[in-house]
Amino acid sequence: MTEFRKDTIINRWVIIAAERARRPSDLAEQTTEYAKGGFCPFDVGNETATPPEVFAMRNQGTLPDTPGWQVRVVNNLYPALSVKDKPLITNCGLYLSMGGYGTHEVMIEGTDHEKQFADFDDQAILRVFLTWQERIRFHKKNSAVCYIQIFKNHGKRGGASLEHTHSQLVAMPFVPGLVEQEIRGAQDYFNTNNRCVYCDLLKQVRENKVYLVAHDSHVVSFCPHASRYPFETWVIPTQHQAGFEDADQETLFKTGRNLGLVLRSLNRVLNRPSYNFVLHTNPAQSGSANYHWHIEVIPITTSIAGFERATDCIINTMAPEKAAEFLREGL
Amino acid sequence: MTEFRKDTIINRWVIIAAERARRPSDLAEQTTEYAKGGFCPFDVGNETATPPEVFAMRNQGTLPDTPGWQVRVVNNLYPALSVKDKPLITNCGLYLSMGGYGTHEVMIEGTDHEKQFADFDDQAILRVFLTWQERIRFHKKNSAVCYIQIFKNHGKRGGASLEHTHSQLVAMPFVPGLVEQEIRGAQDYFNTNNRCVYCDLLKQVRENKVYLVAHDSHVVSFCPHASRYPFETWVIPTQHQAGFEDADQETLFKTGRNLGLVLRSLNRVLNRPSYNFVLHTNPAQSGSANYHWHIEVIPITTSIAGFERATDCIINTMAPEKAAEFLREGL
Repeated sequence: MTEFRKDTIINRWVIIAAERARRPSDLAEQTTEYAKGGFCPFDVGNETATPPEVFAMRNQGTLPDTPGWQVRVVNNLYPALSVKDKPLITNCGLYLSMGGYGTHEVMIEGTDHEKQFADFDDQAILRVFLTWQERIRFHKKNSAVCYIQIFKNHGKRGGASLEHTHSQLVAMPFVPGLVEQEIRGAQDYFNTNNRCVYCDLLKQVRENKVYLVAHDSHVVSFCPHASRYPFETWVIPTQHQAGFEDADQETLFKTGRNLGLVLRSLNRVLNRPSYNFVLHTNPAQSGSANYHWHIEVIPITTSIAGFERATDCIINTMAPEKAAEFLREGL
Repeated sequence: MTEFRKDTIINRWVIIAAERARRPSDLAEQTTEYAKGGFCPFDVGNETATPPEVFAMRNQGTLPDTPGWQVRVVNNLYPALSVKDKPLITNCGLYLSMGGYGTHEVMIEGTDHEKQFADFDDQAILRVFLTWQERIRFHKKNSAVCYIQIFKNHGKRGGASLEHTHSQLVAMPFVPGLVEQEIRGAQDYFNTNNRCVYCDLLKQVRENKVYLVAHDSHVVSFCPHASRYPFETWVIPTQHQAGFEDADQETLFKTGRNLGLVLRSLNRVLNRPSYNFVLHTNPAQSGSANYHWHIEVIPITTSIAGFERATDCIINTMAPEKAAEFLREGL
């Protein structure tokens, strides 16, 4: 039985083609690959091997670019964007270009080279989230920055080139397409219903339960009805808030705890897969009070091919209701 | 030097972050992997190992599902869609679903198990294209079919599960997002300029030359200004035509010859990479006379990661002007 399903927020269809009796082991990592290397520039004591730190949570009295930190933010040595490339639009006939203006930072999430994010205690995850808030607030002051994208690549198939746990931030001069679509979707829904679509979605997820992974009074995680990827999971705070940087510490703490639960369940169910997780939050200079920040977790279990590249319509071979069941068992 | 570039047709930005002195060998296949297997259901003599043929080009007097064919079309044994799932929309609160109605066919492009599409002579490619036209015309008669997507997965990283060369067709009950955006983009451009955006683009590509790969009076291949993927190449006929099924035999022949040139150059430059190529053509029941059919070739050299999954904005580390230069040298 195959089904098209439409995303609740945006105009995106997926094909849920769940093969009979598909087991998580069919999708599990055979050997989790990390980008191993002898010298790690993110280890304590190697602070001079990275660009200078732009922010750190560190023990009082310790100096920048020396040991004594818990979370440390530096510019990416191989940035995708640069403040040197001014955001000026140029066009040559039908070819439109803009300087690759922006900032690309690396947030070293902890000091222990071996400890992965999923193994962090709740306080350590909170420190990472507080750092994200700090950096978003910093970049928002720059009027040329329209969006601040925070994301994490974990494992080699997730795109991580260094094993030491870290997340990344890209501050950019326009709102990226996917976020723009979500904001427009949320605004359209609000215009019709006078309510937030994410708030309504959380209500339905908690009542209907089939997609639910874990929840408490502050946060809900679930596999969305129109999941693009097997075991895709969204983590959304119940309190309506457009911007992540405005979340209070209790919300952050409980969101982090829930995210930790989800990642550890994924590790059990899929044998420590590579994954990405990404923050979607309100843009820096525009956006909508009717948007609602959230985190999307995407384990890397499959590849897309010609049909998906042709259509942008992804075939997902694991029904989210089934994935949610496995993830609840893995908690 | 990093640059944002906007697609000429649709509202899609990419980041061209070309690393200095990047060589094709950095992206080339180390070992091209094919899904090898002992028994091939697509080989001559094994016709009963596939579902019954729905179309074939075959020698006069030979019977269906027996040897004597040059191109053979069968239903996919593991279809993504099925005519049994009616295209009825159901909704449960915020969850919208539709039965996975559709057809999924496999087009076995030749009889020789070892011969890949790129090694076909021009007549063999023409036979494949004529088969595509035949199947599009057939499915267009079904008023429940809104789009017919033809695509090819080549090599294991391209998603091919069988080595024997084949393309695939999915007839589906809505116009997929990416094609819808292209049609809207073409229509918007026409409304403003009274011309086809693809025709204008081909004119600029031929005049400006930096993105050009190969061309003759009937067809132009080039690496688009806002390429998402390294060595992405579009093959577009010069004669304006919305629907592939309406192309005349000379256009088909020359488009196929140009596509063959592109694929063989990719094989030389990238050491026989995995790839997808996809046909974008006018929808079955709607569409616009101002659309313009074309083929997009995407070699698989890199993976996307968290930033791309978060934003839908792809970072391409090979500038298309450089890729086009390498492909011209590889011709």
